[in-house]
Amino acid sequence: MRVLAIDPGLTRCGVGAVDGLPGRRVSLVAVDVIRTPAGDPVPERLRGLADALDGWLDQLRPDVLAVEQVFAQVNVRTVMGTAQAAGVAFLAAARFGIPVAVHTPSEVKAAVTGSGRAGKDQVAEMVTRILHLPARPTPADAADALALAVCHLWRGGTPSAGSAGELTPAQQKWAEAARRAGNVGTRR
Amino acid sequence: MRVLAIDPGLTRCGVGAVDGLPGRRVSLVAVDVIRTPAGDPVPERLRGLADALDGWLDQLRPDVLAVEQVFAQVNVRTVMGTAQAAGVAFLAAARFGIPVAVHTPSEVKAAVTGSGRAGKDQVAEMVTRILHLPARPTPADAADALALAVCHLWRGGTPSAGSAGELTPAQQKWAEAARRAGNVGTRR
Repeated sequence: MRVLAIDPGLTRCGVGAVDGLPGRRVSLVAVDVIRTPAGDPVPERLRGLADALDGWLDQLRPDVLAVEQVFAQVNVRTVMGTAQAAGVAFLAAARFGIPVAVHTPSEVKAAVTGSGRAGKDQVAEMVTRILHLPARPTPADAADALALAVCHLWRGGTPSAGSAGELTPAQQKWAEAARRAGNVGTRR
Repeated sequence: MRVLAIDPGLTRCGVGAVDGLPGRRVSLVAVDVIRTPAGDPVPERLRGLADALDGWLDQLRPDVLAVEQVFAQVNVRTVMGTAQAAGVAFLAAARFGIPVAVHTPSEVKAAVTGSGRAGKDQVAEMVTRILHLPARPTPADAADALALAVCHLWRGGTPSAGSAGELTPAQQKWAEAARRAGNVGTRR
């Protein structure tokens, strides 16, 4: 199973791909950061990001695109650009016929470090070990994308994405049922 | 000059196109509402919206795409989907080589009614008169899109869009200069 994961952003969008199966060894396929010039109009930046993502999807043909959940609460000034970047990634996946899954930052941290509150350093360190990399991936966005890809593999695939900010009616029902069943873990 | 305007949204996205020049009579080209099923995964909904917008851009070849500004403050539950819809519209315009302009809801209301605090009914009524329509466009999203298109024409084209939620560095400088010159009006 091949997972392409992205940590959405306009200035720096982390992208990482891994191969593996739940519970098995995972291996690095590719990792990078897509950057778009902060001075450019946002439509141009989104086009640059979309073209780059199309290239990744076309070359790597992943089984799933994992996207880090965007929270509206975090930072009002930057969240719109991040939401738009996530939207463009969702669209790219849909056009390639590739399913999308969303994971929260705390799910990702918990999956690779055991703690939903782990720091960036700890996440990067664990990603380096899990993927047997010669050095830590930099910048942090690249490490985050790989952590997200590993998280998706190890969780065995959670239900497909709603938006990057809310759950679909189906996801809400699922989340409710999971909560009642007591196995919700760090999911929201 | 032809303006295609959209009031972004996943459930209902108002689209309206008008022809005209600043200070001259404006005429309706087309108006509709693009809908995507609330039960579908968001990536599929964004694809449906993007494909429909591509169709509008391809058929009408507008000189500019006007997009209503999305505010992060309005409603945390729906704003992410709205931001993603706006992002997909920005991307579509960039891929067609069409410039994008963003206007705030109060700019739009002020342009067509004279008051930045006008209600939906007043906006729809004025749009009907300005465009000499036989009846009010419905639903409200369709009227809003036409009001936005008229607003863009009558303002003679404001600077190009940053994101739907923040200003680009160039826009910030422009807004600052405009504020100092005392001619900022209802712009932000």
